[in-house]
Amino acid sequence: MSLAPAPTALQLRSLIKGSGELEISLVETTFPPPGDDEVTVRIEASPINPSDLGLLFGAVDPTTLTVAGTPERPVVKGKVPDALMGAMMGRVDQPLPVGNEGAGVVVAAGKSPAAQALLGATVAVMGGGMYAQLRTLRASMCLRLPDGTRPAEGASCFVNPLTALGMVETMRREGHTALVHTAAASNLGQMLSRICENDGIQLVNIVRKKEQEELLRSGGATVVCNSSSPTFAADLAKAIADTGATLAFDAVGGGKLAGQILAAMEVAAVARMTEYSRYGSTVHKQVYIYGGLDRGPTELSRTYGMAWSVGGWLLTPFLQKIGAAAAQKLRQRVVDELKTTFASHYTRVVSLAEALSSDSIAAYRKMGTSEKFLVNPNRSSPT
Amino acid sequence: MSLAPAPTALQLRSLIKGSGELEISLVETTFPPPGDDEVTVRIEASPINPSDLGLLFGAVDPTTLTVAGTPERPVVKGKVPDALMGAMMGRVDQPLPVGNEGAGVVVAAGKSPAAQALLGATVAVMGGGMYAQLRTLRASMCLRLPDGTRPAEGASCFVNPLTALGMVETMRREGHTALVHTAAASNLGQMLSRICENDGIQLVNIVRKKEQEELLRSGGATVVCNSSSPTFAADLAKAIADTGATLAFDAVGGGKLAGQILAAMEVAAVARMTEYSRYGSTVHKQVYIYGGLDRGPTELSRTYGMAWSVGGWLLTPFLQKIGAAAAQKLRQRVVDELKTTFASHYTRVVSLAEALSSDSIAAYRKMGTSEKFLVNPNRSSPT
Repeated sequence: MSLAPAPTALQLRSLIKGSGELEISLVETTFPPPGDDEVTVRIEASPINPSDLGLLFGAVDPTTLTVAGTPERPVVKGKVPDALMGAMMGRVDQPLPVGNEGAGVVVAAGKSPAAQALLGATVAVMGGGMYAQLRTLRASMCLRLPDGTRPAEGASCFVNPLTALGMVETMRREGHTALVHTAAASNLGQMLSRICENDGIQLVNIVRKKEQEELLRSGGATVVCNSSSPTFAADLAKAIADTGATLAFDAVGGGKLAGQILAAMEVAAVARMTEYSRYGSTVHKQVYIYGGLDRGPTELSRTYGMAWSVGGWLLTPFLQKIGAAAAQKLRQRVVDELKTTFASHYTRVVSLAEALSSDSIAAYRKMGTSEKFLVNPNRSSPT
Repeated sequence: MSLAPAPTALQLRSLIKGSGELEISLVETTFPPPGDDEVTVRIEASPINPSDLGLLFGAVDPTTLTVAGTPERPVVKGKVPDALMGAMMGRVDQPLPVGNEGAGVVVAAGKSPAAQALLGATVAVMGGGMYAQLRTLRASMCLRLPDGTRPAEGASCFVNPLTALGMVETMRREGHTALVHTAAASNLGQMLSRICENDGIQLVNIVRKKEQEELLRSGGATVVCNSSSPTFAADLAKAIADTGATLAFDAVGGGKLAGQILAAMEVAAVARMTEYSRYGSTVHKQVYIYGGLDRGPTELSRTYGMAWSVGGWLLTPFLQKIGAAAAQKLRQRVVDELKTTFASHYTRVVSLAEALSSDSIAAYRKMGTSEKFLVNPNRSSPT
C-alpha cells in the first residue's frame, strides 16, 4: 500500500442540468491508489471518435454552444432543447467523465501479480473517462502494447479496429459473403477496407465525395460508389449484384440510404429467381445501423420483399455475444496489425483545454473524414 | 388411370401486361387427372385475405379499376402506374392463379395409398390457385378435416391460424415473454388474442377505433390501446411497461407506429436501468412487419438506443425454419381448435363471378375488420 498522498489530476466532465444547461469543464480530481487488481494509467493519447460526441454534448442545440472560462480552464456551455430532455433523463445532474478509449503508461499498480506485471508498461485501455490525466481501472482491462509502441500509436486500439473486425465477424457468423459500408472513407472505413483486402472479402464502399472515393481507391479499395454521383443508384445496384453483398453496416442512419441498399440487394436477388413471388426473394437482406451521422428518421419504403431486417449494432454487446475467447482473438489481431491494418492518422494533437476551444469543437463536431483529433491529457496547454 | 375426359372448370387469373394493363378474369381451364401422389379438390370455400390482394391486384392504381364483361364472366381491368412496373417485372404477361388457401372435397385421387385414402374427404389446402372450382395438388399438402367439418369451417386453416401461432412461437424462440400486435381487431388479431388468453401470454392489442376496442374486449382481451385516442402514447407506454413486451408484430408497416412501439419499449427498459448509458438499454426490442395496410414508408426516429431491430416476417419461411415436426404441431393445434380458437367469421359468401363485382372489390379492398369475404367457387352465380 502506498503512503504517498493521493494524486490529483485533471478530468474532463460533461454535465447536463435539469434546466437543460450543458456544461463541459476540466475538474481537478483526486485519484485514490489503485486497488489490488487495479492499475493507474497516465493517459497520453485518446482519440475523439464520433461515438464520444454523444456523451460529450448530449442532445445540445449546437447553435447555443459557447466557450467561457480561461484558456487553461475553458468551460463549454450550451442548451438542450426542452423537447429532447426526455432522452437525457438518465444523465441529468451527473458530471460524467468522457472518452471511450486511449493509451498511456501504467504509473501505479495494486499488489496482485497481474497488476504489478503492468507497472511501467504502455497499455491501451477502453471503458470511458479517458479524457483525463489519470485513469484507474482493472488490470484485466488493459491491453499491453508491444515494446516500442508509443501511446499515440495505441490510442485507437478498440473502438474502430474492433468495430471493423466485428463487422467482418458478423458477416461470417450470419452467413453473408460480402459487405456494404457507408461513410466508408472514415478512419473506421479505411480499416475495414484494409481488413477486407487482406481477407479476400468483397466490400462495397459508399462515400459522399469525389476526394473520399480517391482516398479509398489509393488505399486499395476496388469497389467505391459515390452517393453524390448522378449514376449512384445504378452504380450501387451493379456493385451489389457483382459482389453478392446481402449485409450492410450503415453509419448514416437517417434518410433513405439504408432502404436504397436493401432495394439494390433485392434487385440482385430477384434477378436470380426462377419463379415470381409477390413476397419478393427469400434472400435475407440485413442493414445494421451503427452510427447516426444523419440524426433524421430512417425511411424504409419496404419495396424489397419480406426477407429484410434493419437494426442497431453496437460493439460491446457484440463482443459479449461472441464470448471472451472469440473477442480476445479479435483484440490480438489488432495488436498484431497495429501499425499496418489498424494504423490511425490524426490531423491534430490537443491538450484537454485545447480540445474544448471553439475552434477544435467546430472541427471535430463536423465528423468529417478530413479531421481526426487526438487528445493528450498530459500535454501542457499553451499559456 | 381414369379414361374419363379431363374435366374443365373455372379458374380466376390475374394478368399484368407489359403495357401495365391489369386484367382479372375467369378462365375455363382443363384439369388433367391427378398424378399418382396427387388429388383433385373441388374447392368450396376460400377466404379473401389481405395477403391475397397483392397478387390479385398487383400495384394497380385503384382509381383506374373498372369491371367489364358479363355478370357471369366479369373482367376487371386497371392500370399499374409506370413508376411501379419495376416491382411487377417478375409476373409480367403471366396469367396467374390466385387464392392462398381453401377447403373442399377430394373428387379424384391418384393411385398411391396416401392419395386414395383422401378420396371423398373434406380437406383444407394451401398453395395458391384456390379461387378455382378445382385444384390438383400433392396429397401430402392436404390437411384432412375431422368428420362433420364443413368446407366453410376449414377454409382459413392456414394463413391466419398459422401466422398467429407463428407469432407466439417466434416470441418463445427469440426469448420474449409478451407481445404487441397492431391492427389487432382483424380476424388474425382475434385468433391471436384467443391463443394468448389460452396460453397465459400477455398481449398488447393496438386498434384504431372504439368499436374495435370493444370487439376485442368482448372476446376476452384485457389490454387494448386505441391509436386514435388522445392518450394513446401514454396508454401504450403503460401497457408495454406493465406487460414487459419487447416483441411486436405490425400489420400496418407504414408511418411511425413501429417506431412508437420501440420507443415505448425503450422507456420501459430504461426505467429498469441502474446506470446511464448514452447507447440506451441493452434490452433487445424487435418489431416484425408482416403486412402493409399503410403502404407508405416506415419512419424510424431511432430514439430507442441501439438494441432494436425492424424486419419483415413471413409465414412460409418461418415454417421452413422451424422444421417439419414443429410446423406439424402448429397445424395439428389448428385442427384441434378449429371451431373455437381458430373459428373465422365471414360477412359475405360469394361465387367467383360475384367476387369480381365492383361492389365486392370495393368492400374487400378496404381490408377493414368489418368485412370478411369467403369465395365458394362452386356456388352458382345468379343469372
